[in-house]
Amino acid sequence: MRVAVVGAGVSGLTATKCCLDEGLEPTCFEQSQDIEGLWRYTEHIEAGRPSLYLSVISNSSKEMSAFSDFPFPEDFPVFLPNAQFLDYLQRYAEHFSLREHIKLGTTVVSIRKHADFATTGQWNVVTEAGGKQTSHVFDAVMVCSGNFSEPSLPLHCFPGIERFRGQYFHSRQYKHPDIFQVEASRVAAKVTISTTRGSWLLSHVFEHGYPWDMVLNTRLMSLIKTNLPRPLPWWLLNYKLNQRFNHENYGLQPEKSCLVREPVLNDDLPSYILTGRITIKPGVKEFKDNSVVFHNCTEEEPIDVVVFCTGYNVSFPFLEESVVMVENKHASLYKYVFPTHLQKPTLAVLGLIKPLGGIMPVAEMQARWVSRVFKGLCQLPSQSVMEKEVNEQKKNQVRWFGLTFDEVLKTEWLVYLDTLASFIGAKPSVLGLLCTDPRLALTIFFGPCSPYQYRLGGPGRWEGARQAILTQWDRVLKPTRTRVPAASSSSFPSLLTVVGFLLLLAAVIFAFQ
Amino acid sequence: MRVAVVGAGVSGLTATKCCLDEGLEPTCFEQSQDIEGLWRYTEHIEAGRPSLYLSVISNSSKEMSAFSDFPFPEDFPVFLPNAQFLDYLQRYAEHFSLREHIKLGTTVVSIRKHADFATTGQWNVVTEAGGKQTSHVFDAVMVCSGNFSEPSLPLHCFPGIERFRGQYFHSRQYKHPDIFQVEASRVAAKVTISTTRGSWLLSHVFEHGYPWDMVLNTRLMSLIKTNLPRPLPWWLLNYKLNQRFNHENYGLQPEKSCLVREPVLNDDLPSYILTGRITIKPGVKEFKDNSVVFHNCTEEEPIDVVVFCTGYNVSFPFLEESVVMVENKHASLYKYVFPTHLQKPTLAVLGLIKPLGGIMPVAEMQARWVSRVFKGLCQLPSQSVMEKEVNEQKKNQVRWFGLTFDEVLKTEWLVYLDTLASFIGAKPSVLGLLCTDPRLALTIFFGPCSPYQYRLGGPGRWEGARQAILTQWDRVLKPTRTRVPAASSSSFPSLLTVVGFLLLLAAVIFAFQ
Repeated sequence: MRVAVVGAGVSGLTATKCCLDEGLEPTCFEQSQDIEGLWRYTEHIEAGRPSLYLSVISNSSKEMSAFSDFPFPEDFPVFLPNAQFLDYLQRYAEHFSLREHIKLGTTVVSIRKHADFATTGQWNVVTEAGGKQTSHVFDAVMVCSGNFSEPSLPLHCFPGIERFRGQYFHSRQYKHPDIFQVEASRVAAKVTISTTRGSWLLSHVFEHGYPWDMVLNTRLMSLIKTNLPRPLPWWLLNYKLNQRFNHENYGLQPEKSCLVREPVLNDDLPSYILTGRITIKPGVKEFKDNSVVFHNCTEEEPIDVVVFCTGYNVSFPFLEESVVMVENKHASLYKYVFPTHLQKPTLAVLGLIKPLGGIMPVAEMQARWVSRVFKGLCQLPSQSVMEKEVNEQKKNQVRWFGLTFDEVLKTEWLVYLDTLASFIGAKPSVLGLLCTDPRLALTIFFGPCSPYQYRLGGPGRWEGARQAILTQWDRVLKPTRTRVPAASSSSFPSLLTVVGFLLLLAAVIFAFQ
Repeated sequence: MRVAVVGAGVSGLTATKCCLDEGLEPTCFEQSQDIEGLWRYTEHIEAGRPSLYLSVISNSSKEMSAFSDFPFPEDFPVFLPNAQFLDYLQRYAEHFSLREHIKLGTTVVSIRKHADFATTGQWNVVTEAGGKQTSHVFDAVMVCSGNFSEPSLPLHCFPGIERFRGQYFHSRQYKHPDIFQVEASRVAAKVTISTTRGSWLLSHVFEHGYPWDMVLNTRLMSLIKTNLPRPLPWWLLNYKLNQRFNHENYGLQPEKSCLVREPVLNDDLPSYILTGRITIKPGVKEFKDNSVVFHNCTEEEPIDVVVFCTGYNVSFPFLEESVVMVENKHASLYKYVFPTHLQKPTLAVLGLIKPLGGIMPVAEMQARWVSRVFKGLCQLPSQSVMEKEVNEQKKNQVRWFGLTFDEVLKTEWLVYLDTLASFIGAKPSVLGLLCTDPRLALTIFFGPCSPYQYRLGGPGRWEGARQAILTQWDRVLKPTRTRVPAASSSSFPSLLTVVGFLLLLAAVIFAFQ
């Protein structure tokens, strides 16, 4: 069974790998000259490719970002600069011999249903390399083209922009502070952030200095979030985030606080605001020649450079609209993966989801599921069931995330992973493990939901999974615990023990309610 | 009564002002060409003057740093870049017409006891300006020459430094990252911080985003710290600081944790460590040609540039050693101000103290006390009493702060301010106010101990003090609350209210135990 994989970024790499695991025959088409899509920094912007700025750092920690059978090296930093992320992806490609399945410098021009689609589910794929087009027939297609290539720059929403004499550009064009003198409250004289809706801010460095995602994305937390009576988990999140700094006092409070937006990860902003290097302002009312007027502000602010951080559009230029419909930035996909209305489930979209957690394990889980669906080992529900769920999903999003710019691309990370894992029989059973391997069971339940959990059993079981889970904290501490004082203090009981005990109590209550 | 003030920095300015308030005749000698000592940034280093780096920001918030009768403008940032600190000091000098009492470009060469010192307490002061020396006789002297001018660079403590081929210099010489390519994990390839003793880290942005000193330096906190059974307050502080990040996991844990060192203020370090931009290492064992070996580390680290952050020496080149003895970096001064062994208390040292709080209100309080001692309105205890206390002080420091590099210069900020305030009758009475002005009393007790509290009564009473105290939070929120969302959330009860209530309870217990 031959599978076309479109793009060799994070999703494309793991898609290729998962196809191989299932005995499928992947061919991965990558338009640029090397693998790793998003994470490869280039000095210049390339059309149709994502663009990084130099100082970018991963939002999720290395333990929560890893592919489930390939932990990051222990000496890598806990959160990764793009160069080291790239290094990891290259090691992944080498280790699983993916490169021989990747055709670089090859653009996918069009993907159309084969004449016999209704019976074979096949696709006609046209690619272009070195100015020459080639036609292929594939049994299935995985679309891994990413969603950070087409900037959304709605200038019509900014009155007066045509008379503004300063410089302006989309955030995509931002590379490093030297060019624009603006990263970089350290470079520019004054930096103003204009935000209509406001935002919750998370820090990489979370409680007690642990990575945010290793604290928040645990099975215990997920259980609490999904089981507590409605306003309580929201209130708790609200309180937690305001404990770092009061968002209202810092001008960042989300406009409608009952519609919680996806948090933004930023460590520096609070102290930059408190020291006057950055000022938060409401949305833009109007541009003038050399200044900007903000809503509810009487004075106009002199401005030289404007960076529009207005996000990206989702688009699949090589697909017919009838295959994947994108409407109001929302592609109607079952579990964010499968078009609901095809006669055969032989086309899947990967990585078109923005959960509050590492995207790599998610793309990998999608690929594992998809390749088993392609093989016929997993069945999709009927079209009407899938459509109903997709529509439900749109509504339910409001519970946790406000309907914002890229609204429906968000879902609960752990719940989503568990759902797909249960489809392929790779979801770990905490209760089952409690009898056979209690230490592992407790680590899985109370500890971070690291991706290795999904390799403990089922198809694609990995021998190293248990060990990887039990040593996850070692790999986190290794690059930071680089100085151990002679007389290390442990004379006082750790409050963490107490907290742990309380959490245990809470867990028991929720688990057996 | 004529008073010589040595130096026109923060201490010298307020010393001059306090002399005027008490009807004394100050003459302030400043060796450089402008006022404001420490806070005036110069591109080049000047001998005998402090030296700032460009991106320096005040450690204490504007409300806790202000002179007690001169609040910062409300639109100033909460923590101040040096340019705005300078602006404030210039306004202070203008507002109280201090400039006419300051002789710029005039160096104090020597201060010697006058022949009649035993009876008159007078001093012979020799100054030099434009190459010409002048002799003066003064009735009293305030030494405000600061303690950040003479770098301490103990190279003999670093074996192998003579063979090291890289660049090295004292932190005093650091100006901005362009020069050394090192601030600035953002600029250098790799930054390593070597620390033998480790350190506790505080953030400007403290709990709920309030300035650290407005949360920690309250009368309630001080009461708790000084009244709880010994290990408890230490344990609480320990827990609080580790709640932000576990110092052991980040390699920063103080060596002997029972000797708590003065915390270091830094907002960026934890996230720089977690993202691998900065690595913490133990003390230096040995320098090699192009690398450094650290204690307990087998590998040597390649190093290009070394910045020695080894602090400063205290010195008074214009004074005879018999007047102020500096021994092991410790000047034996009663209340850090008066030499204990002079027949007449007509010489005082200001600002030679490093409390965990704003230095400006402390220097001002010292100046208020000193000027009243000079006038004879306040008496000092006998020489033996003073000496006994100074020696006690040296021992007791261990309770809160480890005996470190500049060990004995530290003391409890609020307790120290209260002590001096009680000498001149300017210490506010919370219990007294509770009957006459309960709102003010509660704000004084539960809120930050802002310096205006010491202008509510006594000599130097300021009409605006009450209003300044009641509006202190307005001035903090003004520069940060720059965006108020349309629908501001207040539908949920604030946990602060709950915390406030618990604190009230605690306070009642401690106050009336």
